[in-house]
Amino acid sequence: MSHDIVSPLCNAAKSKIFLLVLDGLGGLPHPRTGKTELETARTPNLDRWAAQGATGLHDPVAPGITPGSGPSHLALFGYDPIEENVGRGVLSALGAGLEMTKRDVAARINLATRDAEGRITDRRAGRISSEEGKRVIGLLEKNVGIPGVEIILRPEKEHRAVVVFRGDGLDGNVHDTDPQATGVPAKEAAPLEGAPSAARAAEVANEFIAQARKILRGEKAANEVLLRGFAGWNPPVSFRQRFQLRATAIAMYPMYRGLARLVGMEVFPEMPSIEAEVDALPKAFEGADFVYMHIKQTDTAGEDGNFDRKVAVLESVDALIPQMERVAFDVAIVTGDHCTPSLMKAHSWHPVPVLMRGGTTYVDDTKEFGESACRRGALGRFPAKQLLQQALAAAGRLDKFGA
Amino acid sequence: MSHDIVSPLCNAAKSKIFLLVLDGLGGLPHPRTGKTELETARTPNLDRWAAQGATGLHDPVAPGITPGSGPSHLALFGYDPIEENVGRGVLSALGAGLEMTKRDVAARINLATRDAEGRITDRRAGRISSEEGKRVIGLLEKNVGIPGVEIILRPEKEHRAVVVFRGDGLDGNVHDTDPQATGVPAKEAAPLEGAPSAARAAEVANEFIAQARKILRGEKAANEVLLRGFAGWNPPVSFRQRFQLRATAIAMYPMYRGLARLVGMEVFPEMPSIEAEVDALPKAFEGADFVYMHIKQTDTAGEDGNFDRKVAVLESVDALIPQMERVAFDVAIVTGDHCTPSLMKAHSWHPVPVLMRGGTTYVDDTKEFGESACRRGALGRFPAKQLLQQALAAAGRLDKFGA
Repeated sequence: MSHDIVSPLCNAAKSKIFLLVLDGLGGLPHPRTGKTELETARTPNLDRWAAQGATGLHDPVAPGITPGSGPSHLALFGYDPIEENVGRGVLSALGAGLEMTKRDVAARINLATRDAEGRITDRRAGRISSEEGKRVIGLLEKNVGIPGVEIILRPEKEHRAVVVFRGDGLDGNVHDTDPQATGVPAKEAAPLEGAPSAARAAEVANEFIAQARKILRGEKAANEVLLRGFAGWNPPVSFRQRFQLRATAIAMYPMYRGLARLVGMEVFPEMPSIEAEVDALPKAFEGADFVYMHIKQTDTAGEDGNFDRKVAVLESVDALIPQMERVAFDVAIVTGDHCTPSLMKAHSWHPVPVLMRGGTTYVDDTKEFGESACRRGALGRFPAKQLLQQALAAAGRLDKFGA
Repeated sequence: MSHDIVSPLCNAAKSKIFLLVLDGLGGLPHPRTGKTELETARTPNLDRWAAQGATGLHDPVAPGITPGSGPSHLALFGYDPIEENVGRGVLSALGAGLEMTKRDVAARINLATRDAEGRITDRRAGRISSEEGKRVIGLLEKNVGIPGVEIILRPEKEHRAVVVFRGDGLDGNVHDTDPQATGVPAKEAAPLEGAPSAARAAEVANEFIAQARKILRGEKAANEVLLRGFAGWNPPVSFRQRFQLRATAIAMYPMYRGLARLVGMEVFPEMPSIEAEVDALPKAFEGADFVYMHIKQTDTAGEDGNFDRKVAVLESVDALIPQMERVAFDVAIVTGDHCTPSLMKAHSWHPVPVLMRGGTTYVDDTKEFGESACRRGALGRFPAKQLLQQALAAAGRLDKFGA
């Protein structure tokens, strides 16, 4: 793993690094113009940064792999997104804005339907509306109860929700109850092989499921809950311990604040707008060597399939670059956690544009920030988990390896 | 590890490979001209070789990692520089020109100062001059003595030196004595966890330290020795066994001859000049399939911050290319073990220019040998440990993988 070399080399130089993540940054060419969202947007400031530094493409997890926000952010933070995956339940809890503790086990819920014999008839309850999902989860919230265990429920989109069981002796090494098929009953929650310490968590999960079935007996829309991605709160070695960086995070959405908190960054409170995020930058750098800023709107526009809005968001971020660069950081990185092409209305597997400038970053020939330019950039195409170490190097924060 | 695939595929074809390493080759653009040392130098012959073959960039250890000469050379020799690291003490001994044996344990010495209670006051003895360091090591050399153990000492620069303990039953798995802090006493040498067989080496090291303290009792400049990087002589599988290559090394400096010897190459004696190295090339290829030639002066000029001298060295090497190519090798590689930009006066983390020509090497569009051209080259940006296998392939020395 990359950190095995990097972590022991990190020093506490005074230089500062700024990581600007434009969620879902990369796109695909518009059929009419042959240009992506980023290439269509007028971004004179980002282009100037690209000209002053080097560009390239990163693969968040591996070539061809479409990542969720969790693994892709861990990679941008210098962690191995495969070896150090933190569990789907935890990511869902972070996304719902829940602050997990060591006594918690989180799991994702699928609302589903079952027949009179208990066989699953629809694993997603006909993709019920988010409103219906919220109502059903509200019913559960009001009526479930297990002595000694706090049960925290949050609806997500449509049939999805998250549950956190909080109590003593809970261990997240529990099998999914989702049978991944219809016509068969849900599985019982059970400890994973070799994890007898998860017996109590499995028992709690089974009791929760039994109560949920009773509570939802009369419901047409959803009368079953399938649980998967059980996981406890096991944060990796902190960002500060690992990279000698005091880090602050600025983000509008709970998921990204949660991911920053997971690696031990200081996290600023919820921000109402991109402008508010940028206004917070000077304060974020007070006493910090590293600031991570997350912009969500690029991804939202991509997910909505709104090419023009994604272009507009990119232009509005570009217009704020002059304000950002009034803050004295040494090395800046601008990239995405993954691509969200408007034409796909979803996260995609394509490599993600990245630019780095400042410190001892070399200056390559690319003078624009866009997918085509980045393909020719000197950073080349590389695994995202190797991005931070290059920024540390450019900032003079890495000692020599070997004699 | 790369050799796990490569080694079994190696055959004993008659083709020959020439690896020319220009130490510290890569640089950064001069602020006035925007050109690096290599781009500034007039190198018509290297440019011709680049035009006849393919160029690219390699990362000696990993992107962002500034390598020492040891790991970077192991990578150029096709070894994994992380998994097959050979120990700092051994690299220092090689650098000092010591020929280690299986009965040896080497360690790096920091001359230091301690107060009356034995607490370290300066871990580098105020970075005493190289002359003073030499004098102090001379005092130790004259006066230490442990029955049954030969103690070999060599001063390096300033406060640094190397010691080799030669005797029976010595094992290099010993903890550093350097406490990495002042105000505390040095640690005792002790076997690493799970290495009780290193007890004797630890005992020898502690006895050496005790004697050194007595000998240096009256010294103002340095009255303490801190030992670190203990390592025995455990060479990896030899170059010949691994790659079916009979190899010869030509180098002016002991470190590089030592590294070549470490992997079992034939090593030519010390050379007085670059010209002498090139004169030796025909003889080096007699009975050899592979010749490694190391040019140190590029790195020295870079470390001195002398941009113009680095340019001049590059031009003088270029002028010798016609003489080199009179020798009948099939595939030639020209690269560095790392970058040493004159503007940084130190090894750096930047990827290193590389050209390969001959055999079945493809011909790409790059027609110059320089950082900017190499960024567009067809070799791309790749880990240095994958360089040799590409040369083996171009030389027809690798069989097909799988059926």
